Formats: sequence, structure tokens, C-alpha cells
Amino acid sequence: MAIVMYDLAGADPALRFSPYCWRIRMALAHKGLPVETVPWRFTDKDAIAFSGQGRVPVIRDGATVVSDSWAIACHLEATYPDRPSLFGGATGQAHARLINAWADAVVLGAAARLVVADIHAAIDPKDGDYFRSSREQRFGMTLEAVQADGRANRLAAFRDSLTPARLVLRAQPWLGGDTPSYADHILFGTLQWPRCVSRFEVLAANDPVVAWQERALDLYGGLGRSAVRV
Amino acid sequence: MAIVMYDLAGADPALRFSPYCWRIRMALAHKGLPVETVPWRFTDKDAIAFSGQGRVPVIRDGATVVSDSWAIACHLEATYPDRPSLFGGATGQAHARLINAWADAVVLGAAARLVVADIHAAIDPKDGDYFRSSREQRFGMTLEAVQADGRANRLAAFRDSLTPARLVLRAQPWLGGDTPSYADHILFGTLQWPRCVSRFEVLAANDPVVAWQERALDLYGGLGRSAVRV
Repeated sequence: MAIVMYDLAGADPALRFSPYCWRIRMALAHKGLPVETVPWRFTDKDAIAFSGQGRVPVIRDGATVVSDSWAIACHLEATYPDRPSLFGGATGQAHARLINAWADAVVLGAAARLVVADIHAAIDPKDGDYFRSSREQRFGMTLEAVQADGRANRLAAFRDSLTPARLVLRAQPWLGGDTPSYADHILFGTLQWPRCVSRFEVLAANDPVVAWQERALDLYGGLGRSAVRV
Repeated sequence: MAIVMYDLAGADPALRFSPYCWRIRMALAHKGLPVETVPWRFTDKDAIAFSGQGRVPVIRDGATVVSDSWAIACHLEATYPDRPSLFGGATGQAHARLINAWADAVVLGAAARLVVADIHAAIDPKDGDYFRSSREQRFGMTLEAVQADGRANRLAAFRDSLTPARLVLRAQPWLGGDTPSYADHILFGTLQWPRCVSRFEVLAANDPVVAWQERALDLYGGLGRSAVRV
């Protein structure tokens, strides 16, 4: 029985753009586990109430329900130890937690400022008011003002936030070393978010991170490359 | 035969404060390898010319010479695989490279602005002109102005730079998981730098990073805690 994953969708149900859900799509493919995704919108709280919280990704793996992308990745690693490892052992997993925290606390926040109005334009109309009011409260200005300021004044800061990854990718092909690990899926998912929901190019074409991203787009039969984009 | 390590020293030869050298002192202790340190000053380029470059740490391990802290950690892991692992395998090592790059590119730079004049005050007088001119060129202002600005305006940014570690340490006792890994030594060494060379408290006393630092100071017989401070 395939794992079921509730996956954030846009007005077009085929548009899937959550950075956290992308991490898990890649992790499932990494482990060769089939998945059935269920399109979910921000306001569909009832649909995932069984998980005890209100955000995706949520997976149902047989009788087990897991929410939160990091917890799901750890669940997959523990439950399917004979399939290709996401972490390469306990220390690799511990280190990946810092990479996860870095991507969440630094890279995602910087990326949001570049595409937040485009997200609003892409999501289901029923989610629009919730998304606008919650994000405008967070930023203290309109989504359009955040995005305009971001593109005018904060693009360099976003690109600088990726410096650690850029330094690593000078020395090894994947954040996981010779082969991809969950660290790659963390950053790849983070970047699938602006890539799917916006046509704004957040990275310079000659950035080594782009060369890595292109390789990652081809993983698992081109899972990432086949994603619907706005 | 003990490994020999060239270690940055201050005017007081017992004052050892290089963040990169501290990472290796901890890594050597982690592996239970004895070391003889040689005090070295910024301008002692001739003393390490045998390494083909001009920075410490440099180690001489039998007939092998290695410079650059990351390269030294990898050398120790490869050369002494039967001793406690620094990385927990290839993936853990690959992930640690990103943590190393993050500490170098983000945390060290933010810390420098808080203590750079104190460093000048602590180093050997013969290093003073070199240190002042090279750092003032980099910052575009006097060391005293950098440090005053840093303490007045950039302390929060330094503390924010540690957010990824803070998030991890809420969930696990060490960056390496249940036990310390080289990831811990990377960040610990980074923080030994301001700790040894300055009396300015760069972290708030109630910061979870401080609780972790206190535990790390006790590792290996209190190696870090016994360090000479200005």
C-alpha cells in the first residue's frame, strides 16, 4: 500500500510548491517508496485534523501518521533501513538536523521575500485571505511591498545565504558527498518553492548552486524537473 | 611520536585563540591522540614554510604535513579510523563540511566584529602592524571602530547567526547527536576564539548555546576550560 502524503497545492491542483513537501517527495523517491499525494490547501485544516496539527506534509504510512518534514524523514529512515539511506548513520542524521535548521531559519526566510506575492497569486482563491493576512502580519507590510522590496534590495542577501552550500559544492558534487543525501533534498525542496511558484530567477545562471540544482532536477526520473510551474 | 601542531599564540605564548586551531585541538583529543603544540605568530611565515602556505593550524604527523583545519580533520579521520570517529561515516563527513562552511562564512565573520580590537591587544607586538593593516583593509575602518560598531549595532546579528545551532540543541545534546562530533568541535572552536581573546560576553547567559558550550568546555579533561584567557 502506497504511502499517502498530503501535499500543498495551488489553484491548479497539479501545482505543488511547498518546500517541506518537496523535501519529502524527494526523500520518498530516494528510498524508492511509492506515494499517493493528496492535494491540500492552507485552509483544509479539517482534512488533516487526524494528524493532530494543521500543516503539511502529513503522511499516512499504513497505520502510522507522521507530520513535520524532519519527523517524516526520520520516520522513513527508521522504518525502511534496508533502502538507500537518507542520512548515512546517526551522526549524519544529527548533522543534517543543523542543515535543516539552517535552511529553515536562513534560506527560506530570505527566499520568501522574493516570491511571496507570486505565491499569493498561485494559491487557491479560498486560501487567499488567510495567506495574505497571516503573512502581512508577519512582515508588517503588504505582500506586494515585501516582494518589491525583496527583489530591489534583498536579492544579494538571499544569494549570500547560500554561501555555505556554494562552498561545499566547490568541493563535492552533492551536499551528501558523492551521492545525494537528505541534506540535498532539504536544500532542493527549499529552492523548488520559488522555482515552482514564480518565474522570478532567484539565482544567477552561473551560480554553482544552479549547476547542482540542475543535477538534482534529474534525480529519480526527473521528479523535480517534471513539476508543474506557474 | 606525538603529532606536532603549529598553534596561533598571543603575546603570552600560553594564550591560544585561533578558532581553526581549537577545532583541531578538540579533534585530536576526541581521537585520543597526543599533541605537542608549537606557539606560532602571524608573522612567523618562515616557520611553516615547509607546509607550502602561511596559515595555521599545520600539523606534522610522522612524515605527513597537513594544513587547513578541514583537511587536518579529514586526515585524522582517514589515518586513525579505529579511534572514535569525528564524522560517523562518509555522509556525516559530507554534512559536516556544510557546517564548517557555515561556521566560517557566517559565524566567524559576525564574531570578528565583536572582538577584533581585543585580538590586536592580545597578539604579539611583532604581529600588530600586520594584523591591523590587513584587517583594517578588509573592514574599511579602524579595528577600534569595527569593534565599537559591532558591540553597539551587531551583537544581535551575531547571536542570530547561531539560530541553526540553537534549534538543533533544543532537540539533541550535541551537534553530533548523543555524543560530540567534529560539528561540535567546529562551533566550539569558533566560540573559543572570542572566549579566549576577549572578556566581552558574546552570548547571553541564558542562551542554550551557552549550556552546550559549558558541556563542551568539560570534554577531554576540561581541555577547553583550562585554556588561558586574557
